[in-house]
Amino acid sequence: MTTTATTLKGQPLDKAALESLLRRRLFYTPSFEIYGGVSGLYDYGPPGCALQANIIDLWRKHFILEEDMLEVDCTVLTPHDVLKTSGHVDKFADWMCKDPKNGEILRADHFVEDVLESRLKGDKEARGQKVEEKEEDPKKKKKKSKGHEAVKLDDAVVQEYEEVLAQIDNYNGEQLGELIKKYDLRNPATGEQPSPPVAFNLMFQTSIGPSSNLPGYLRPETAQGQFLNFAKLLEFNTGQMPFASASIGKSYRNEISPRAGLLRVREFLMAEIEHFVDPEGHKKHSRFHEVEDIELELLDRHTQLSGKTTTKRMTIGQAVKDGLVDNETLGYFLARIHLFLKKIGIDQSKIRFRQHMANEMAHYACDCWDAELLTSGGWVECVGCADRSAYDLSVHAKKTGAPLIVRQRLDEPKVIEEWEVEIEKKKFGPFYKKDGKTIEAAILATSQEERGKLAKDLEETGKAVINVPSVGDGKVEVSKDLLAIKWQKRVENIREYTPNVIEPSFGIGRILYSLMEHNYWTRASEGGDEARGVLSFPPAVAPTKVLIVPLSSHKDFTPAVRKLSQKLRSAGISSRVDDSSASIGKRYSRNDELGTPFGVTVDFQTVKDATITLRERDSTRQVRAEEDKIIEAIRALVEGTKTWQDIESELPLFEGQQEVEVAVR
Amino acid sequence: MTTTATTLKGQPLDKAALESLLRRRLFYTPSFEIYGGVSGLYDYGPPGCALQANIIDLWRKHFILEEDMLEVDCTVLTPHDVLKTSGHVDKFADWMCKDPKNGEILRADHFVEDVLESRLKGDKEARGQKVEEKEEDPKKKKKKSKGHEAVKLDDAVVQEYEEVLAQIDNYNGEQLGELIKKYDLRNPATGEQPSPPVAFNLMFQTSIGPSSNLPGYLRPETAQGQFLNFAKLLEFNTGQMPFASASIGKSYRNEISPRAGLLRVREFLMAEIEHFVDPEGHKKHSRFHEVEDIELELLDRHTQLSGKTTTKRMTIGQAVKDGLVDNETLGYFLARIHLFLKKIGIDQSKIRFRQHMANEMAHYACDCWDAELLTSGGWVECVGCADRSAYDLSVHAKKTGAPLIVRQRLDEPKVIEEWEVEIEKKKFGPFYKKDGKTIEAAILATSQEERGKLAKDLEETGKAVINVPSVGDGKVEVSKDLLAIKWQKRVENIREYTPNVIEPSFGIGRILYSLMEHNYWTRASEGGDEARGVLSFPPAVAPTKVLIVPLSSHKDFTPAVRKLSQKLRSAGISSRVDDSSASIGKRYSRNDELGTPFGVTVDFQTVKDATITLRERDSTRQVRAEEDKIIEAIRALVEGTKTWQDIESELPLFEGQQEVEVAVR
Repeated sequence: MTTTATTLKGQPLDKAALESLLRRRLFYTPSFEIYGGVSGLYDYGPPGCALQANIIDLWRKHFILEEDMLEVDCTVLTPHDVLKTSGHVDKFADWMCKDPKNGEILRADHFVEDVLESRLKGDKEARGQKVEEKEEDPKKKKKKSKGHEAVKLDDAVVQEYEEVLAQIDNYNGEQLGELIKKYDLRNPATGEQPSPPVAFNLMFQTSIGPSSNLPGYLRPETAQGQFLNFAKLLEFNTGQMPFASASIGKSYRNEISPRAGLLRVREFLMAEIEHFVDPEGHKKHSRFHEVEDIELELLDRHTQLSGKTTTKRMTIGQAVKDGLVDNETLGYFLARIHLFLKKIGIDQSKIRFRQHMANEMAHYACDCWDAELLTSGGWVECVGCADRSAYDLSVHAKKTGAPLIVRQRLDEPKVIEEWEVEIEKKKFGPFYKKDGKTIEAAILATSQEERGKLAKDLEETGKAVINVPSVGDGKVEVSKDLLAIKWQKRVENIREYTPNVIEPSFGIGRILYSLMEHNYWTRASEGGDEARGVLSFPPAVAPTKVLIVPLSSHKDFTPAVRKLSQKLRSAGISSRVDDSSASIGKRYSRNDELGTPFGVTVDFQTVKDATITLRERDSTRQVRAEEDKIIEAIRALVEGTKTWQDIESELPLFEGQQEVEVAVR
Repeated sequence: MTTTATTLKGQPLDKAALESLLRRRLFYTPSFEIYGGVSGLYDYGPPGCALQANIIDLWRKHFILEEDMLEVDCTVLTPHDVLKTSGHVDKFADWMCKDPKNGEILRADHFVEDVLESRLKGDKEARGQKVEEKEEDPKKKKKKSKGHEAVKLDDAVVQEYEEVLAQIDNYNGEQLGELIKKYDLRNPATGEQPSPPVAFNLMFQTSIGPSSNLPGYLRPETAQGQFLNFAKLLEFNTGQMPFASASIGKSYRNEISPRAGLLRVREFLMAEIEHFVDPEGHKKHSRFHEVEDIELELLDRHTQLSGKTTTKRMTIGQAVKDGLVDNETLGYFLARIHLFLKKIGIDQSKIRFRQHMANEMAHYACDCWDAELLTSGGWVECVGCADRSAYDLSVHAKKTGAPLIVRQRLDEPKVIEEWEVEIEKKKFGPFYKKDGKTIEAAILATSQEERGKLAKDLEETGKAVINVPSVGDGKVEVSKDLLAIKWQKRVENIREYTPNVIEPSFGIGRILYSLMEHNYWTRASEGGDEARGVLSFPPAVAPTKVLIVPLSSHKDFTPAVRKLSQKLRSAGISSRVDDSSASIGKRYSRNDELGTPFGVTVDFQTVKDATITLRERDSTRQVRAEEDKIIEAIRALVEGTKTWQDIESELPLFEGQQEVEVAVR
């Protein structure tokens, strides 16, 4: 496994150079920059937008179409009651503390992490060891402009700090407060110890309608809309289980102090699946056999709690068999997530699956594995895969009375024998008057065991004593002319159950950023003067597939360029024309930065014999052939049915243009 | 022109039946329904979601790809300052008034419209004329459960009311208040006259970050993000003008009392284009000739102000020539909008373009035409096409100092000769001391004409008198050793200008709803018992293209169904299998309601000879052929390269299955 961020070619990653490229080429840009910007908000420019659309398109095909999932589009605005019931109003919070001197607001876990890591670095320096600087860790709340002091620590202290850091996500606010006191952690900006952590709810609040009486929030996840529509979706699916719904849309989290670029933002695109499954039968999955041999890097919770971060590589089949991953459905989705990340071009050596520790888990989850990707900001959670059990459907059903259940016709009717209560309503009410309802409820609430005893009393003594704490002395006598308890047999043809939910949840922006890092590299220019950036996106996700480069902006080339452009559009292949006055070499190198996998040149030869050259981004090698053959080659390359090697073996290599390119640089 | 809502086949539209179908088939559903719902918020289920995705896909191809627009994705969260500058904080409001008795909040224009229309209906009834009831007009704030009284009005009053209604969108709050008093308009629910209208801002407010010191809003349009990124987009476009940016995303308006289904909602998907154009040269458009012969129905502002709503049908070329539509770029986009609406299946007889009246226009617009679609809720604005002039770029540039301008290299340098001021700084400051800066500013602010006079005075008398109101008696003498004014020549190679913006802005939800109404019709079932609903979407936008129907759920059919499903997926054609136990007729009729254009049946013959039947939704006719031929036919039908008539002439008709279908009904 790789352990530090590198380029695609294994070079150390120069993050500043990459970010400069990404902003220059408008992959993304801070929102409202001319107004000074707002931290945690970013806009995507044309290439970022196209990259995002292509990732979403592949996601839809890989998950929704492949498994006939039911896609829904629910509102972001969500009334208070829904998120109160789901637990988000009370529990969806981070811990924040305040510097008593300058009023700075700090996210508690990031603060503890920062200071301890800084001390460990100081220790390494004092011991004369090499210190690796991560630039802008997504979990860090500020750049350590103050740096760290070279102070040697006891070996035992070093080990203690490392153990704390390995389980930093597992502490609650009180525990973080204790760590701050225990290790006397101080804000480097002021030298002060911050105040004890308090919970800060991460939801953006607003008010719906003109009379301000309907408080609401921007959803923190797309899931709730899917749960609330469960009964309708089940009916749409003609009652068949299991099934999944899916949703692609924006969600919002009011991060305390986001300063990690696209890795921690306040508004983000999510793609979420809610797979509804019968909790009986160990959550088997009918297609698990298709993925069971796929190998994953797994970091389980026990390893982390023991203060380590070493992963185990094993097949998902083995992991489920060993009980490391709880069930087939969870395992199936971990493998499918892995395949998706591979398909879009994530570096295979930079993926691991990390299990959440108990305190770290969201309030609704009973198990959760994150797909983490290695970036310059360390290992970053990009996909969560949680087993939410029956939590959400149960709480909403309880609150609203809506039947969020599955009614399953049983193949073999089930015979049930049990004690049943019969109340003689006509006499019961008039006899007990105002206490009637309370006493009746107490009787109906009795257990089978209690009913057995009551039945015996009624039969033997003609009366029974019921415990009703709120009536009289708490004991109420009921005679057998008012109440009967009988041993009854009945046959059930229907089984009712609340499904469990397995939820793969994708942070598209984080995946997109990681993809850009994983596909970035630099190559020496032929003049040798400077390294030029390349983004080697797979053709399927590349923002634009083809750059069309006329030799010059001379009008002789216009008809050929227009025709080519039109033909590519009909073939469903996105292209852009660059007829600027820059040299061909410059124009190609601009498009290497944009990640455009193919380039075609229209030159004087084209005007004569309708042949064009095709250049491949990564090798910079070229072939030349008649226009339609080149278009066919591009189509095959984009659809993934042929490789560049195939094309080189089919079409004649071209080297003339290459020389021109060198010459004009 | 059609004037009332009908089905695709010209039947009177039974809106209740259509809505019942749309909800039953989960095209859309009220959000949070199990919590009682929130007015103005709706979720899309699987078919609505797919329909929306297909409309967006066609939009992207028709506009963005066709014209190389620069797509961006900006945040919904927007800080207060941006929307203060844009004018939305002060002016983006509707007028609301309150019933003094029951506290009901009414939208003033809708209230006036409701009461006047109700009186006009009462008048018609009293005159014994037929009254057409529109069910749930989108501009109505409540259903008139109280109905209207049959009271005859004077002819002059009727005319006055009709004139008010024709320009209802043109009144401000004060004027609406006057109308309420003048005509003594009362809330039918209480018999009270509501309070005078007050402005209610339509933006949802929230707070960004943990310290509540950064107020923000959910954007009411996607436009602002595009304007703020103008300089970066221009650079990305290598400085070339004109160009357009585009954005597809959600926007939010806190409607006062939305009760018109998908036609008036608080959260909605928009697709907006900002086309930046040089204001010099009459905003010509290089592709205008491609559309100039397209005919549109136009309703200009003069007609409306004269109290009428009759449209003029003319080519867009003629409309621009006559000055009815201000310029080619605006005209070009009106025609392109028309073509887009036609492509997705909007009824051509139910589109008109209506020009905004002066008071109706948004604060930023200098001209605006709406594409309105005729629905059961009357004519509904679905696309706005505004000329925002240089308003937005200018106000943001002024507020932030950012250069939101185009620097155009002039082909011929411009020679400028004019009076220029030279101040002898070393002496000037010490001489005038504290007043120096003020006097200098006054000198620099002088006009060319004034400078000419001052130059003459300096030359003739050795001094000049400057008007500086805030210094001494307002007149300051400046001698020629402190100030020189010279006639200078300079050459400019660059022209700087702020582009104008033409903005086509699409409300996707309203278009989607209108599309459902325009494509809905009913046909008698073959048993003749009841009318069955059909949604005749064009194949390109239909949610699912193919329904696969095995004769039964027998396992013999499974391999053929799976293979077919796989082949369609590879061909990029979305399909669904319905292997439920319902009869084939029932399953087809379910899919007619879902708007699925094609159905294939897998039967015993398929297992023998691999032939399948293909059914067309609108004619219910079928052909039968070998699987690959049928798939090829479907592909051609979906891509629009062949019609059903073509297919019928190529492949053998099939009538056997039809009989089975009738039999099982």
